[in-house]
Amino acid sequence: MSDTTSAPLNRLSWLRTSHSFLNAIAASPNARWLLLNGTQHLLSSSAVLAELTTEQVKSFLGPEPWFGQGKDEGQTLTANELGTFTESARHRGPRIVFLGLHDALSTVNALPTSDFTDPETAVAKLNGTPYFAFDIGEANASAFLEEHKQFSWGEARPLMMNVTLDKLSLALFTESRSMVDWNLRNKFCPACGSPTFSQWGGWKLSCSTLLPWADNTGKEPCPTAKGLHNFAHPRTDPVVITLVLDETGEKVLMGRGKKFPGKFYSALAGFIEPAETFEDSVIREIWEEAGVKVWDVQYHSTQPWPFPANLMVGFYARADSSQTIRVDLDNELADARWFTRAEVLEVVNHKLGSNLSGRDHKRLDEITDGPSGKAAAGEAAPVVEDEPPFRVPPTGAIAGVLIRDWAFGKKTFAPIQKGNL
Amino acid sequence: MSDTTSAPLNRLSWLRTSHSFLNAIAASPNARWLLLNGTQHLLSSSAVLAELTTEQVKSFLGPEPWFGQGKDEGQTLTANELGTFTESARHRGPRIVFLGLHDALSTVNALPTSDFTDPETAVAKLNGTPYFAFDIGEANASAFLEEHKQFSWGEARPLMMNVTLDKLSLALFTESRSMVDWNLRNKFCPACGSPTFSQWGGWKLSCSTLLPWADNTGKEPCPTAKGLHNFAHPRTDPVVITLVLDETGEKVLMGRGKKFPGKFYSALAGFIEPAETFEDSVIREIWEEAGVKVWDVQYHSTQPWPFPANLMVGFYARADSSQTIRVDLDNELADARWFTRAEVLEVVNHKLGSNLSGRDHKRLDEITDGPSGKAAAGEAAPVVEDEPPFRVPPTGAIAGVLIRDWAFGKKTFAPIQKGNL
Repeated sequence: MSDTTSAPLNRLSWLRTSHSFLNAIAASPNARWLLLNGTQHLLSSSAVLAELTTEQVKSFLGPEPWFGQGKDEGQTLTANELGTFTESARHRGPRIVFLGLHDALSTVNALPTSDFTDPETAVAKLNGTPYFAFDIGEANASAFLEEHKQFSWGEARPLMMNVTLDKLSLALFTESRSMVDWNLRNKFCPACGSPTFSQWGGWKLSCSTLLPWADNTGKEPCPTAKGLHNFAHPRTDPVVITLVLDETGEKVLMGRGKKFPGKFYSALAGFIEPAETFEDSVIREIWEEAGVKVWDVQYHSTQPWPFPANLMVGFYARADSSQTIRVDLDNELADARWFTRAEVLEVVNHKLGSNLSGRDHKRLDEITDGPSGKAAAGEAAPVVEDEPPFRVPPTGAIAGVLIRDWAFGKKTFAPIQKGNL
Repeated sequence: MSDTTSAPLNRLSWLRTSHSFLNAIAASPNARWLLLNGTQHLLSSSAVLAELTTEQVKSFLGPEPWFGQGKDEGQTLTANELGTFTESARHRGPRIVFLGLHDALSTVNALPTSDFTDPETAVAKLNGTPYFAFDIGEANASAFLEEHKQFSWGEARPLMMNVTLDKLSLALFTESRSMVDWNLRNKFCPACGSPTFSQWGGWKLSCSTLLPWADNTGKEPCPTAKGLHNFAHPRTDPVVITLVLDETGEKVLMGRGKKFPGKFYSALAGFIEPAETFEDSVIREIWEEAGVKVWDVQYHSTQPWPFPANLMVGFYARADSSQTIRVDLDNELADARWFTRAEVLEVVNHKLGSNLSGRDHKRLDEITDGPSGKAAAGEAAPVVEDEPPFRVPPTGAIAGVLIRDWAFGKKTFAPIQKGNL
């Protein structure tokens, strides 16, 4: 997570405003499409993300043009209609997200906005695979499986937690999961309550009262007609997650969330709030959850966590372990306590130390998405012979990395004299 | 910004769900209120944030109870009405934000949810000043000044950029600016288009169709009736901002945004996108804006930037300075180039090296909020005798800190052998 090679998808973000570019690259024979049905992805027979061609998905996209749609079906925007609120407009058909091009950031192949005049030729010269994603809708989702029995719909979270996905698959999963969710979830304008429509290849949502042909008789002008509005752009919710070390650097503070699956302990986490630095937020969260004051907050790395749009920001911090732990302040944790390096090593070296059953995944889903109809507790716990004394998150989650980087000594922390606290 | 003492306001976030607590603390004689009118704060005669008592603002708040409002005016929620969607409900009157208590995080004074039964007595025991904020509305804003001539309405951004505000004032300004804006801006439910109402002392917005007495005849149930929805909670938009150093560590890459005030150069910045780590985002932004590939991305610190809800996340990164700079990819910068330490030192040591005129502030406002009616370019530029060759941001902005920490050698960077690039 902390390596700094570039991401596998080149998002070509500045070309999203060009419907000619998007239409050309979407029609390219190289283009590949991920399908979603709510929170589920279309998976191939080998349970990895299915990648379909444009031909295979065309019937779900509605009539062309797919981007830069004019007032009437089948029409492209006229010169008169072009403007800020129609850039790459898509107000008919499922909202399509352009994920990017699987290609290194290359200045040789780059398509600058400044000389972008012949999209088809420019797109034909691009190397790499362009990726798109959209939500197919529940009715189509079942029908699609009837006709394509090699596929299935599945939650990809277990893939992310338990399996070492290749970098491209992880990027495709993460970006499509967050972006399709954002497009699905935000159907109405927060400023005036009118329906929204899609722009910029899925990266902007605007108020339909701003379309040049909108009939706004009797309506107040939408406040989004002027100024900039953050809700028009995708949202990312930073979560600070912190492994707290004691003054010796040999013990860590971990907690058990009330809804965690059995025996799991982890680093303490919480959403940041407006007007906080990350460091403020780390201090507040650990105090609220465990009653412990920390200092010396040190950044580790970040991990996108697309359920639906979190960004986990990992930290270490120090605390005086003689402080009384109390979990009755915000009542989020069932328990919080200090663990020695030996205790943690026993678990991370145990073959089941980070084992997650299907039932565990279900509980984790509920933490993010709220309770589902079916109670996880109703299912039988798996019987395991050689059980670890407790469990910690796997390396697929940043908490698992923070814990192991400390436990295995990859990150070292000097002892602190009590007098210096 | 990178110090890790706790923030001056104790947000007591877990008590926001209790209307008894909020009503008691809002009525406390110690409580102080910040007033906003859109993006402007009420300022006292000495041009600092005005702090009013509950008595002074009462007439604008509507009838009590202020929190936990039942169906009819003047009614508190009944036991039957209490539930997730009515916790601290405020569906009448301006949306009030509880900012927190000016008090160290103290476990002695802490009010746990677990034994919180007598709010008045508990609140009376609290030390420190509780702070609230709300938007008074345009009509009331003028009327208020008529009656209270010692006050004025003003944009507080210049305060933040040019003056060293004390820590409490900065926290009050930042939190109230972001939170009141969020409450004002999000009037309708993104899931179904119905009006929203306020919960949790301004920290949650819910769909009015979920109020137990809502008449939803003929409406589809709102999707927010089930599961968790991030738009119900305040939004923070992380922006990565990076000072790029060359292989020697003696030169930095800075850019001039097309809309920047005259002669300003700064670190390169951009919003992060879903599914990016900060490091991914730093690499993408610098490549998009300047055509330069960077590596070795190092975290510096964060700064809340409440226009309206950004969090600036500061980084250093390294690049091979022999790469061709090109700003024609995303066309955001007018210019980007390398500056030597001597060139930067001349500016940061110049008394006007970070000077911001009122006109400059206006241009900066427009970058955040979009163009205003009045063109900044129409006003005469101030004539200055001893002009610096260029300007850089002041220390009130994180870019100014990144630049000075490098220029003055507070942060040092070893040269990198060309062969190791």
